[in-house]
Amino acid sequence: MKEVGIALIGLGTVGGGVYKTLEMQKQRIEHKEGVSLNLKKVLALDYSIDIPEELKAKDFNKDIIEDDSIDIVIELIGGIDPAKQFILAALEAGKTVVTANKDLIAQYWPVINAAAKKSGAGFDFGASVCGGIPILRTMWESLQANDVESLMGIINGTTNYILYNMTEQGLSYEEALAQAQAKGLAEANPTSDVEGYDAMYKLSILSSMAFHARVPIEYIYREGITKVDKEDIAYGKELGYTVKLLAIAKRNGNTIEARVHPTMIPDTHPLASVRGAFNAVFIHGNIVDDIMLYGRGAGDMPTASAVVSDVIYAAGRSGHRYTTFYNEEKVSDELKFENNWESEYFIRIIAQDNPGVLAKIASIFGSYGVSLASVIQKGHNMPSVPLIFITHMAKELPLKRAIDEISMIDDVISVAGLIRVES
Amino acid sequence: MKEVGIALIGLGTVGGGVYKTLEMQKQRIEHKEGVSLNLKKVLALDYSIDIPEELKAKDFNKDIIEDDSIDIVIELIGGIDPAKQFILAALEAGKTVVTANKDLIAQYWPVINAAAKKSGAGFDFGASVCGGIPILRTMWESLQANDVESLMGIINGTTNYILYNMTEQGLSYEEALAQAQAKGLAEANPTSDVEGYDAMYKLSILSSMAFHARVPIEYIYREGITKVDKEDIAYGKELGYTVKLLAIAKRNGNTIEARVHPTMIPDTHPLASVRGAFNAVFIHGNIVDDIMLYGRGAGDMPTASAVVSDVIYAAGRSGHRYTTFYNEEKVSDELKFENNWESEYFIRIIAQDNPGVLAKIASIFGSYGVSLASVIQKGHNMPSVPLIFITHMAKELPLKRAIDEISMIDDVISVAGLIRVES
Repeated sequence: MKEVGIALIGLGTVGGGVYKTLEMQKQRIEHKEGVSLNLKKVLALDYSIDIPEELKAKDFNKDIIEDDSIDIVIELIGGIDPAKQFILAALEAGKTVVTANKDLIAQYWPVINAAAKKSGAGFDFGASVCGGIPILRTMWESLQANDVESLMGIINGTTNYILYNMTEQGLSYEEALAQAQAKGLAEANPTSDVEGYDAMYKLSILSSMAFHARVPIEYIYREGITKVDKEDIAYGKELGYTVKLLAIAKRNGNTIEARVHPTMIPDTHPLASVRGAFNAVFIHGNIVDDIMLYGRGAGDMPTASAVVSDVIYAAGRSGHRYTTFYNEEKVSDELKFENNWESEYFIRIIAQDNPGVLAKIASIFGSYGVSLASVIQKGHNMPSVPLIFITHMAKELPLKRAIDEISMIDDVISVAGLIRVES
Repeated sequence: MKEVGIALIGLGTVGGGVYKTLEMQKQRIEHKEGVSLNLKKVLALDYSIDIPEELKAKDFNKDIIEDDSIDIVIELIGGIDPAKQFILAALEAGKTVVTANKDLIAQYWPVINAAAKKSGAGFDFGASVCGGIPILRTMWESLQANDVESLMGIINGTTNYILYNMTEQGLSYEEALAQAQAKGLAEANPTSDVEGYDAMYKLSILSSMAFHARVPIEYIYREGITKVDKEDIAYGKELGYTVKLLAIAKRNGNTIEARVHPTMIPDTHPLASVRGAFNAVFIHGNIVDDIMLYGRGAGDMPTASAVVSDVIYAAGRSGHRYTTFYNEEKVSDELKFENNWESEYFIRIIAQDNPGVLAKIASIFGSYGVSLASVIQKGHNMPSVPLIFITHMAKELPLKRAIDEISMIDDVISVAGLIRVES
C-alpha cells in the first residue's frame, strides 16, 4: 500500500476536523483507496485538541520542511501571514500543499502557482470554496467537456442564514444578524461576511477556474446585505421572489462579468430553496445545461471532507498539471471585464401620493432606456406610498443614472430599495 | 499533446450528442485539457446524422478491434445484446470502454469488470446514472474521506415529470402520463420508467458504488408510481409533503436496505423542489454531512457531457483501479439486506362514517406496534369519509400486516393510499 506522510499546520475548527477525520477514517481510506495517510507532525499555536506529544512540531523547518518522510503539508491557519511563507517554503521543498485558504489564493495565486510549477509540487485547494461541496473538483474532473457560460452561487453561509431568517421570521437585518451572532454563525465583527468580501474571494477563485481566465478581486462588483430591508423581502415574496446574496459570474466570448450582491430569484429556482447556512452553486455549461451542487459550505467536518479528499487525490496522482491561464501577473489583454451588465431590477420608491408622480418616474426610466415590466402602488390617500417597479432587462449604468435623477424629483421621498433580479 | 483515438458505437440520442460534443468542443478540450480526442470510427445501424463516409465502420472487428489507433470505445447502443459482446471484445483487446448502459452494468458487472481487470483496460460508466450529473465521479473522487451512510435520489426524470404535473396541475396519473408521452418524455410503453425498473438499475449501481459492496437488483424493493392517486398528493400537500419517486439506500454496519417507491418528503427538503424532468441525488456522508447534486438526468447533450468527461478522464489516467468488492459472483456473506426497514407512513383509508371505526383501526395499528403521529378525518356525516393517518417510525412488515387486517374491518371500504414518508 502507498504510504503518505502528512504534516498539518493549524488546529483550529477545520484543522481539528481534519485531525479527527484522519483518525476516524484511516482504516476505511486504506481499504477503499489503497493509500495509508500517516500524520507525522502537527504545528499549531496552541493544541486545543489532545494529541500525542511526538506529533507536535517544534520547528517548522526542522520538523516539517527537512523531514523527507513528509510528502504533503496541509495549511489550515488561514490569512496571509505566516500561511504564505509556510506554503511557499513547502512548495519550494517539493512538498504538495493542500489548503482551504481562500484569501491567500484569491490574492497571491500567481506567486503560489509559480512556486509549485518550479518545483513540480502539487497545490490543491478544493476546500477553499464552499467547504464540503466539491465544486472545483467537479468543474475540473466532471465538466471538462463544457464551456461554463455562467454560474450563480450562495457561497457564504452566514449571509444566507441571515437572509433566510429575515424571510421566514420577518426579522430586520439587525435582528437576524444578532441571532446569527448568538448562534456562532456570524463573527462579532461580521464585515467580511455581510459586506460580501468572503463571497468575493471565493467568486474570484470559482470564476477563474470556471472560465480558465484569471478574475482578480478588483474586477468583482461587491455589495453586501446590510441594506436589505425586510420590506423588500416581503414585497419580493408577494411577487414570487426570494432574496439571496448571490455570487454571479458570466462569460460571453471574451467578456466576463463577476458580481456579488443581494439578488431576487424566482421561488421556483433551485437556489431559492437553499435554507439556513447551506451553500449551493448553480452552473450552466454549454453541453450539460444546468447543474447544481448543494451542501455545507463551512464547519469543521464538512470542510475536512474536502481537505482530506484533496490529500487522497494528491496521494494518488502521478503528475500535477499546472494552470497556465491563471499564472498571469496581469490579466489577459484579450479579456474585457464588464461593469455595465444587464439585469432586471426590483426598485422600491417612497413617494408622496400626488397625481403625476408615477408619470414623472416612468418618464425618467424611459429616457434612460429602462423598460418597466410591472408597477405596483401599495396603498392610496396616504401621505407617502411605496411604489414597486420591476424592470425588463436593463443596463446597470443607465439604470443607476435614472435612479439618481428619480431621487431628485420633489414628490419622491426616497429610493428605498434596489435589488437585482435573476431568473 | 496526447492523441487519443476513439470509436463510437451507436448514433441515437446520446450517441448523436456525443458526436456533436466531440466536434463542437474539440479545440476547447485540447486547449483546456491538453488531450486531442480523435474520432476514428462510428458504428451504427443507421446514420441519422450526416457524418463523413470514411468515419463509418463496416465491420466491428476489422474497423475497431483490430485498429490499434483506437484506444477508447464508446458504447451507446444500450440494452444487453449486442452491447455486451461489443464491450467484452473491446476490453479483451485492451481498449478502454466508456458506456452509459445501466441495464448491462447492473446485471452483468462481474463479467465486465473481470474482463477489464484481466486485460488492464479501463471501464468507465459515469453516464450510466443520472445523465449529466457527475454523481459517481463525485463519490469516487470527492467523497473518498466519507462513509456514505444513506442516499436518496430522484433518478428517473419521466416519473418526476409525471408526479410534478400531478402536483402542480392536479392531474390524475393517467392524464399526466399522457401529457409526458405527448412531450416525448415517456415511452409509448412506459413500464420501465413508471414501474421503477429504470430507477432500480440505477440504484443498484449507485448504492454499490456508495457502499463499496455489490447491491444486486434482486435485493432492491421496487414500487412504481402507477397507483399514486392525486388525492394522496393533495393530502400530502396539505400536510406539508411533496410526493416523489425516490430511490433510497441506507447502510448501517453490514446491513443494507435499498428501495424504490413513491415517497412523501417535507416541502422544505431540497429534493422537494426538484421540478419537471430534473434529477437529483441527496447523500449523507459521515464527514461531509448532507450534500446534493442536481441536474439533467437524461437528454442528448447532458448525457454526452458525462460520456465525454469519462473519455477525457480515461485519456489522462495513468493506471486503472479495479473494484474488488463488486466483482463477486455472489453477494458478500457478511452483508444483510434488510426488507423490514423502518419508515414513517402516510395511509389513507376510506371508511363508513360509523362510530367506533377509528378506534378499531387505531387498535389494530397498536397491536402491531405501529404508533400514530396524527389522524385526520376529512368530512363527517357522509356515507364514506377518508381517514388520513401519519405514523411514527414503524417497521415495514408489521405495518403491512396491520394494513391487511384493517382492510378486513367491515366499516372499512378500502385502504386507498399508502405512501412512505422520509424526512
